[in-house]
Amino acid sequence: MEYNFAERADLVKPSLLRSAWRMFKPETIKFTAGSPDPLCLPNEELAPIAERVLSAKDGKDALQYNDSEGYLLLREKVKEIMKSRGIGVETDQVLMTNGSQQGIDFACRVFLDIGDTVIIEKPTYVGALNTMRNYQCNFVSVDSDSDGMIISDLEKKLETSEKVKFIYMISNFQNPSGRVWSEKRREALVKLANKYNVVVIEDDPYGELRFEGEPVPCCKSFDTEGRVLYLGSFSKVLAPGLRVGWICADKEIMEKLLVCKQTCDMHVCAFTQRVVAQYLDGIDFSDRIDTLVAFYDHRKEKMIEALDTYMPEGVIYEKPQGGLFVWLETPKFIDTTALFLKGLKHNIGIIPGIMFFADQAEDENHYIRLCYSQVNDEDMDQGIQILGELLKEEIASKKFEYERVV
Amino acid sequence: MEYNFAERADLVKPSLLRSAWRMFKPETIKFTAGSPDPLCLPNEELAPIAERVLSAKDGKDALQYNDSEGYLLLREKVKEIMKSRGIGVETDQVLMTNGSQQGIDFACRVFLDIGDTVIIEKPTYVGALNTMRNYQCNFVSVDSDSDGMIISDLEKKLETSEKVKFIYMISNFQNPSGRVWSEKRREALVKLANKYNVVVIEDDPYGELRFEGEPVPCCKSFDTEGRVLYLGSFSKVLAPGLRVGWICADKEIMEKLLVCKQTCDMHVCAFTQRVVAQYLDGIDFSDRIDTLVAFYDHRKEKMIEALDTYMPEGVIYEKPQGGLFVWLETPKFIDTTALFLKGLKHNIGIIPGIMFFADQAEDENHYIRLCYSQVNDEDMDQGIQILGELLKEEIASKKFEYERVV
Repeated sequence: MEYNFAERADLVKPSLLRSAWRMFKPETIKFTAGSPDPLCLPNEELAPIAERVLSAKDGKDALQYNDSEGYLLLREKVKEIMKSRGIGVETDQVLMTNGSQQGIDFACRVFLDIGDTVIIEKPTYVGALNTMRNYQCNFVSVDSDSDGMIISDLEKKLETSEKVKFIYMISNFQNPSGRVWSEKRREALVKLANKYNVVVIEDDPYGELRFEGEPVPCCKSFDTEGRVLYLGSFSKVLAPGLRVGWICADKEIMEKLLVCKQTCDMHVCAFTQRVVAQYLDGIDFSDRIDTLVAFYDHRKEKMIEALDTYMPEGVIYEKPQGGLFVWLETPKFIDTTALFLKGLKHNIGIIPGIMFFADQAEDENHYIRLCYSQVNDEDMDQGIQILGELLKEEIASKKFEYERVV
Repeated sequence: MEYNFAERADLVKPSLLRSAWRMFKPETIKFTAGSPDPLCLPNEELAPIAERVLSAKDGKDALQYNDSEGYLLLREKVKEIMKSRGIGVETDQVLMTNGSQQGIDFACRVFLDIGDTVIIEKPTYVGALNTMRNYQCNFVSVDSDSDGMIISDLEKKLETSEKVKFIYMISNFQNPSGRVWSEKRREALVKLANKYNVVVIEDDPYGELRFEGEPVPCCKSFDTEGRVLYLGSFSKVLAPGLRVGWICADKEIMEKLLVCKQTCDMHVCAFTQRVVAQYLDGIDFSDRIDTLVAFYDHRKEKMIEALDTYMPEGVIYEKPQGGLFVWLETPKFIDTTALFLKGLKHNIGIIPGIMFFADQAEDENHYIRLCYSQVNDEDMDQGIQILGELLKEEIASKKFEYERVV
């Protein structure tokens, strides 16, 4: 039959990142998804907790319908985590979500009508772009540098864009660029949001994975008017497969978000929420973070070492201060989508940078996102060497052509 | 600040059913939510499985990002369950969802543009109505009797309504009416869907809880054109707190649903999916169903006994052949929303029927949905006795007034 789909259903194609998984062989070295290394997943610790949660006196509650807000004790734990990030919120300002991906979806659901405008960083998280595309919004990208959005460009865009509902930003170790917003820029962003009466969606899944330097206060901590929604996640610091994240927001927004949760899927798995809450109750979370930071810092160092060794001239990157990603800028004439396919043949998985741009213009196709989280020392050296060789070949073959045309 | 919410965010208010939970005292006898009785939740069986899943050789996969389609072995189990319901589907026609509530949301997301029409039963599941309201659709309600929608009325509505995208129906032991669609009506429904080129959303969370009579083939089994989406759920037969359900659909629809899952929340909790799959692998599922059927059949009998004993003249109900609900029709002049509030004071929780009507017209306010699943024998007798007394009072006080006006 000829299906009569909704307009939105034709706007987003299945994610390349996800379908790329299917093309990988077991020996493929994966610089792709921002997944934790299996060594960092706490199976041993969670196994007895899971058994206990179900055997406990109140174990039935873990299998019964639960409140849409989330499990109270977990929301209280989140409140503590938020406090450690410098943000004072009440428990009833915390809604548990299926990872922060659902937080992004809910923010759209609560704020976006068809044709509304979302202001985004350039580049930004592809999963957020795709979720927002579903809501048939317009994107306005703001020029960004290593300190975050360039504030003069943000103000210009706020001034000239119609129906702006929110600014979506990743404050720490941004996906894909790895950049950290400076404190000055964060403060300026919130001021502009106040001036132009728009909401800010602050997505912060990587903030705790800081290798060096001092943490920068969240945008939410500069928010005096309840206009910043903060999205948190256990995916990077605990386990993404559990799909547990949260939103912190003003109570009036929370009422709307709660209806989203009720009508979308009722609540986050009650069992999983209890397992996470008991786990957090039994450990010093900052100890765990320290261990993860040491682990990923090492991998980052290895990647930077290998990049320094193997990258040809004309490939630019910064050393990230935290998070999971290195963002490569290659010469303008390189087509990294083609390089991605070549890489698959040579058993390396990379992500072409064009996916992280809303417009996907031709001059946005020469970036690569590399994730170091899942690659051990040996594979790191080998994988980056292969990438270096592929890039050298590409540069050699395309440079002549490019220079002739220009 | 003055928030500038999306239009959809003002269309749905927090569910009365969910906020009613807050008003209950521990001693309140709950005829409200269609939740399993705690005695039917398999904590003992799941506890060691949960521990094993995380300790297994492939235990890391339970905590890592997973495919959006769902865990393969669970999808294969679902395929078997579908087969036992007379529906042959391939594994790649199964998408795991966070309960069938998410299946309803995804169906809307894939098919509904603003102003599209959804055809529904009268009455129908309030959770579906609220989800659909989010998509700014129009509702067209079709008159229904104890065999399902009245086909002549359905055809009339299909003929005269514009932009109909789908028909939403609950084939077995409908929520709230407890009714079962006859085979003839199911076949006629699919024929009309073919004729008018609309999709059918067949929601079937209660189908396996049949106390008497022969199962009726699902609408999906009459579907030769891939236009029926079947929504299944483990909420009533296993545990609602786990939030595990599924959609079966044609492959072309499945592609769109997969994008929904990716952009909404990536995948159902990987850990929980594995726990459910291993549980299903280790038991004879039909044995479990038999146990549940015997349990709820007993409760249904007790409720019917109590209703026969305590209901005043003028209150009409049918004995359900399965599922969890009895639908009461009280005299037209009774306001069951007011009765709901009175009930709370007398420690009984009931659901006013008006919630299950799209229009919520005045003449739809004299129904009550009663759920027997969570009420033991003693409370059943006592609770229904209280309801009977409250109804008698209401009838006595309102009848005079009503007859004077009429």
